[in-house]
Amino acid sequence: MIQVQLIENPQGIADCPGFKSAGVAADIREKGDLQRLDLALVTAEQPCNAAGVFTLNDVCAAPVHVCKAILSQPNMKVAGFVANSGNANAATAEQGMRDAKEMSAIAQLETGIGSPFLVCSTGRIGRKLPMGKIKSGIAAAAHALSSETQASLDAADAILTSDTRRKCATARFTYQGQTLTVAGIAKGAGMIEPNMATMLAFLTTDLEVDNAALKDTLVQACNQTFNRISIDGDMSTNDTVLLLANGKSGLVPNDSPELLQAFREAVLQVCDALAEKIVGDGEKVTKLVELVVEGCQSEQDAEKVARAVGNSLLVKTSWYGSDPNWGRLADAAGYARVGLKEACFDIHYDDVPALIGGLPQDSNLAQWKAIVSKKRFRITLNLNQGSGSFRLLTSDLSEAYVDFNKSE
Amino acid sequence: MIQVQLIENPQGIADCPGFKSAGVAADIREKGDLQRLDLALVTAEQPCNAAGVFTLNDVCAAPVHVCKAILSQPNMKVAGFVANSGNANAATAEQGMRDAKEMSAIAQLETGIGSPFLVCSTGRIGRKLPMGKIKSGIAAAAHALSSETQASLDAADAILTSDTRRKCATARFTYQGQTLTVAGIAKGAGMIEPNMATMLAFLTTDLEVDNAALKDTLVQACNQTFNRISIDGDMSTNDTVLLLANGKSGLVPNDSPELLQAFREAVLQVCDALAEKIVGDGEKVTKLVELVVEGCQSEQDAEKVARAVGNSLLVKTSWYGSDPNWGRLADAAGYARVGLKEACFDIHYDDVPALIGGLPQDSNLAQWKAIVSKKRFRITLNLNQGSGSFRLLTSDLSEAYVDFNKSE
Repeated sequence: MIQVQLIENPQGIADCPGFKSAGVAADIREKGDLQRLDLALVTAEQPCNAAGVFTLNDVCAAPVHVCKAILSQPNMKVAGFVANSGNANAATAEQGMRDAKEMSAIAQLETGIGSPFLVCSTGRIGRKLPMGKIKSGIAAAAHALSSETQASLDAADAILTSDTRRKCATARFTYQGQTLTVAGIAKGAGMIEPNMATMLAFLTTDLEVDNAALKDTLVQACNQTFNRISIDGDMSTNDTVLLLANGKSGLVPNDSPELLQAFREAVLQVCDALAEKIVGDGEKVTKLVELVVEGCQSEQDAEKVARAVGNSLLVKTSWYGSDPNWGRLADAAGYARVGLKEACFDIHYDDVPALIGGLPQDSNLAQWKAIVSKKRFRITLNLNQGSGSFRLLTSDLSEAYVDFNKSE
Repeated sequence: MIQVQLIENPQGIADCPGFKSAGVAADIREKGDLQRLDLALVTAEQPCNAAGVFTLNDVCAAPVHVCKAILSQPNMKVAGFVANSGNANAATAEQGMRDAKEMSAIAQLETGIGSPFLVCSTGRIGRKLPMGKIKSGIAAAAHALSSETQASLDAADAILTSDTRRKCATARFTYQGQTLTVAGIAKGAGMIEPNMATMLAFLTTDLEVDNAALKDTLVQACNQTFNRISIDGDMSTNDTVLLLANGKSGLVPNDSPELLQAFREAVLQVCDALAEKIVGDGEKVTKLVELVVEGCQSEQDAEKVARAVGNSLLVKTSWYGSDPNWGRLADAAGYARVGLKEACFDIHYDDVPALIGGLPQDSNLAQWKAIVSKKRFRITLNLNQGSGSFRLLTSDLSEAYVDFNKSE
């Protein structure tokens, strides 16, 4: 089996041969801030195969509709993508659709590339895109396009909103002496919940992968990673994950099961690393909690329990307060209503039992307290009724989250 | 139609003829606090018909199981109820069941009444009831039983946990020259969500109503009231609403459709008033929001939308910050996934349009701001796709909530 590994110190799109990036300050927030990078442009040396995974929200932002339309065309190839932060272009009706299409068209015009650009927006809902600023921003970005590291970092910065840290992850592996790459950048921070988060993620690879295989690979990776994280339980209108393959390496995974497997693994690793970075940098998050639900009658049941517990305000606030309040865990698990039986219910903090067969293990109290005081810990709930399991990466809820979100 | 009215300045159980109450300080929290009332005992002059509505949580507290067992007996009559705050007797396994049964038996023993007592507990989950304190508390309460107002207020106070205010509501009406009463007391505060809240409510009436009609009346009233409030989305393990009818008036609603109708209306009014008091006194709530969802294809769909919006952290924090962020409302309505179509979607703050047919009514911004700055306001979401509607009474989410719940 081919060894796939995340690299240390990933630098974003530039890690992948054959792509150029730019990130510029376009003042999309219309606050006169000419320092803050808020528009990213990425293109490839040659048109790319591409796949996307999108929010399931009924209220879907205009750029999501535009991406879906582009990606649904047979034998479609894309030039790259253009993305802005500061304005979501969501709940903007027909004008929003026109603006998203125009944003894509401007990128084509300014770069002089014949294939269409995918388009993403993130930020405040319900405001019209400032198209003048979008236009001059894209022109500046087209001019700045480069395969250098700094341009790549600028693009990774330009998609951030309330994130406090840039999010890059790159996986590499070797096949027949050649090094192959899947590089990714992401933004997260708020409205983080499955299917998907208020998150954007962009992955690029130099492998030659057809659109169907790209889509299949991306869907599977998202289900295992981005769809298993939660910060505040709010699903966004704009969530988008794109995967672009420029084929520069000339290697075609579909020709080799071994190579395909390595490619899938690389995409999974990059998505997993980005998902973890998103939760770790969630708005005003102080703790990262790995919630493992086991012993359910199905994976669906386990997911219900994990989401009930992981999104419970009372559970999240108790984590914030380093209070090993397993009673709240049991309460939330109970209202998932998958037929939990108290006498068969176990809870562990890391490896320390809190509840075994419904009986509190009070003598371990000092150990539970030490565990929930850590920055990262694991809680395992076992219903002992079957083999269904689900792992959710979630977070605490702090006073600072409320303060941060009380106005925009 | 008989006119049913809530009375001003309700005093709890004592408003209803033929019942006695007591509330005593039993130090159930085991903190040596001999001032805080934490055990309530209520009995009737004669055995009562009774009905109960309980939490749907899989993790159901021991007293809930005991109440259900008592109420399931044919032609059952009860002596009254005993309730403690400070300890939920939930997730306490077999010992918890023994303790709840014993608590009920002690009430019988100390009052010398032959019929069983219903039993309720509220407070911290996962701790054994301090049975010595329960025992001496019930003995003191049995001694203090009285039909006087002070005893009634003491009982209403003894069931409170993090509530800041006593919650009483009484409805009265006249039939054939006779005044009839439905009196109620409740506790709420945290873990407030449908089916039901972490709430206890106790209603009494001097009408003669059979158990089946009591149950039917109570279920319908709860569905219209307690099951349509939400503070933090957490459903408790102990939620219980009891309705006791002592028949002292000698009037039998089942003999007269008009009387039955008035009785049902009285129960509904009392439940509605108590539900509203519960949300208004939710943990660290600063605003009460009446969320009305209309135009859905079914009531179930409307409920899904209402709960998605009413439980969204981002929506609740924006209310707290007096930010008329209708974009977050639209986002949350969208992830309820009932097939919302943006172009048919209207949002109003009180009577001021924010979104009409998916188009923002930005010129009203100053008015929206004024409305969400109020202590109480209404938001109407209309999907314009059918006639299904749902009203949810909900609240904002404050930093103080997080602070308050970060440890117990």
